[in-house]
Amino acid sequence: MFSAEEIRSDFKIFSRPENEGLIYLDSAATTHRPECVIQAEADFYRSNNANPLRGLYALSIRATDDYENARASVAKFLNAAEPAEIIFTRNASESLNLVAYTIGLSEVQAGDEVVVSCMEHHSNILPWQMVCNAKGAKLVWLECDSSAEISEQEIKAKINSKTKIVAVAQVSNVFGITNPIEQIASYAHKVGNGGKGAYVVVDGAQSAPHKKIDVQALDADFFAFSGHKLCAPMGIGALYGKKHLLEKIPPFLRGGEMIEYVTRETATFAEVPHKFEAGTVNAGGAVALAKAIEYIQGIGLGNIEKNDDSLAQTMIEGMKKIPYLHIIGNNDYKKHCGIVTFTIDGVHPHDIASILDTEKIAVRAGHHCAQPLMQKLGVGSTARASCYFYNTQQEVEVFIEKLKLVRRWMGFKE
Amino acid sequence: MFSAEEIRSDFKIFSRPENEGLIYLDSAATTHRPECVIQAEADFYRSNNANPLRGLYALSIRATDDYENARASVAKFLNAAEPAEIIFTRNASESLNLVAYTIGLSEVQAGDEVVVSCMEHHSNILPWQMVCNAKGAKLVWLECDSSAEISEQEIKAKINSKTKIVAVAQVSNVFGITNPIEQIASYAHKVGNGGKGAYVVVDGAQSAPHKKIDVQALDADFFAFSGHKLCAPMGIGALYGKKHLLEKIPPFLRGGEMIEYVTRETATFAEVPHKFEAGTVNAGGAVALAKAIEYIQGIGLGNIEKNDDSLAQTMIEGMKKIPYLHIIGNNDYKKHCGIVTFTIDGVHPHDIASILDTEKIAVRAGHHCAQPLMQKLGVGSTARASCYFYNTQQEVEVFIEKLKLVRRWMGFKE
Repeated sequence: MFSAEEIRSDFKIFSRPENEGLIYLDSAATTHRPECVIQAEADFYRSNNANPLRGLYALSIRATDDYENARASVAKFLNAAEPAEIIFTRNASESLNLVAYTIGLSEVQAGDEVVVSCMEHHSNILPWQMVCNAKGAKLVWLECDSSAEISEQEIKAKINSKTKIVAVAQVSNVFGITNPIEQIASYAHKVGNGGKGAYVVVDGAQSAPHKKIDVQALDADFFAFSGHKLCAPMGIGALYGKKHLLEKIPPFLRGGEMIEYVTRETATFAEVPHKFEAGTVNAGGAVALAKAIEYIQGIGLGNIEKNDDSLAQTMIEGMKKIPYLHIIGNNDYKKHCGIVTFTIDGVHPHDIASILDTEKIAVRAGHHCAQPLMQKLGVGSTARASCYFYNTQQEVEVFIEKLKLVRRWMGFKE
Repeated sequence: MFSAEEIRSDFKIFSRPENEGLIYLDSAATTHRPECVIQAEADFYRSNNANPLRGLYALSIRATDDYENARASVAKFLNAAEPAEIIFTRNASESLNLVAYTIGLSEVQAGDEVVVSCMEHHSNILPWQMVCNAKGAKLVWLECDSSAEISEQEIKAKINSKTKIVAVAQVSNVFGITNPIEQIASYAHKVGNGGKGAYVVVDGAQSAPHKKIDVQALDADFFAFSGHKLCAPMGIGALYGKKHLLEKIPPFLRGGEMIEYVTRETATFAEVPHKFEAGTVNAGGAVALAKAIEYIQGIGLGNIEKNDDSLAQTMIEGMKKIPYLHIIGNNDYKKHCGIVTFTIDGVHPHDIASILDTEKIAVRAGHHCAQPLMQKLGVGSTARASCYFYNTQQEVEVFIEKLKLVRRWMGFKE
């Protein structure tokens, strides 16, 4: 097991004078970057920078090698069958849009159903609303129970032969709960699309940073994640897709390097994955993402999970003792992936965040880009604290202590 | 005037042992990054990193300020009327796809015409082929003359009342020539779309790094460029759009932070520019892009142009003395923006690049993502040398000396 205290020295942000005393509990929004990741990107630019995939000279070949090695790292990280199944994108949102614009618009027909869960992030709702509107298909919602869990019964009630696509987050960015992707995929592949199988799209933005991912074991057809939520820079993410599906679907962004041959009238497209990577790729970002993956694997995803549980346990046990505080979702700390969303009676979540900010504690408040879930829960917004491996027990304890005072700061007398 | 020799010390790549003797003449593909740009991105991650636009705590507010200040820098760089006219994208290709997927698919109708030039990069052809195919519109080609120039006569011959969109590169990545955007825009706005005016989309990927851009003087409706071609990192670029047009067109990528309100059935979208920026933005890249702009403005775009001319002059005068070498396009070095494309009789461009690489000279060979232009010119591929402000006269002289030997290395005896 690692020591969060020791690991923090890899992250310069915590030792900067302007961040003295900062307790950062917003890693579900974005994580910080260890120095090795920052340096990996800088070193690419200082040493091997060139436009990859296009050059016949040594520097460009080195850049290409760096870029394609990064793709291989991501493939291994997700246990994809081969690197060609990995498309580099800007972030999980773009990955999901890519799937919607390609397989969504080309495969979904009038009368079909697209199934999402009630707890999806807007990134995994809006693209499917667009597809359903364009095609006259129906958006169907997998509901969760009062423990934030999606039951087998619900899966069987909502996925049927009309289902063309099922798009679900592996881990909810509000509840922190892990959805039963394997069961959903297995059932969707069996009964969806008239028995030929629905396409299963997994939003892995919140799971990839916290859990060992095995896209083959999940039997996901597509799996999206963002680099910036697992210590890589912003502006780089990935989409995994089963190769035969990536080969079948039309391209999305069009431009340089995604073509085979272009005439004035038409074009043929490059092989997968380059078919989906138009224009100059973000090689510096990809190299940094590969380094972030290496760094996280060095810590160990099993260890990260244990630490998430331990921090969530302290948080949830502490919160349970605070009157007027309501934890949203499941009461079992092991089902939180280090994410705890809550409300306090009489205090607007924005005030919770602002009050905690005066104590240098950073938590998120708002709808968490999941307004349909907020509507279902009957709340306008909530507060959310989310941990990563660089958070310490002591930070969580301080957070709980300060949280106890929030109502008093707002003038409540209890 | 600056000294390229002195400026090179800002770029660590030139002093790395593995790059000793490197003569990099491929800046039209991608430029190198000065240390201040690399550090600006690193410093963002070390000091102000948080998810911008979403947080109520100090760190996130600093991140938001950094991000929005970067937008203001880009707006000033292009002389946009206001920062809200700048959308951050991954690169120029994505910017052009955004325009095609939004205004292209929503405005172009059957029977309409979309006008591109014969010298467009695939990024400014394929999106329009997609739009024309989807809508039953016609793609019309502005031809250049033997000097690579588009005449007023040609503009008037091809743009007419059926023209809905005109999409043209300001500077050709093959010829280096500057197209008459003001004349094209003025005429397209006058006669296009039944006299209501066609939309004018400018691919500024090759012009923004080399010329002072004034989108208002050009009267461009949209203007796309990539950061990585002007010393910023890969993975960040921008699209300028006139505000009333950005407000009018539908969103492209859908997800977090580009919405106002989402229900299970529908969504309303955020104000411009956030409507077009789904998911976590690349704040680190935007900050670095702003620093790159500051750096380039410190050198001075007027000085960069003078230096481009001076290097192109040496290059073209040297090339003219090489038998069997053919310069593609215009013979006037002032019309090259530091880009010179050429062929050598009897030597495949790939061999030119490979032979020069053994001398540590990096030039590009291939179709330069402009296959329709290659077809028009009757060549499969060409070689291209492209300069930036960090290139020295001496480098160009060495390049010319080595170029003289290429045919001999291939076994020709002259």
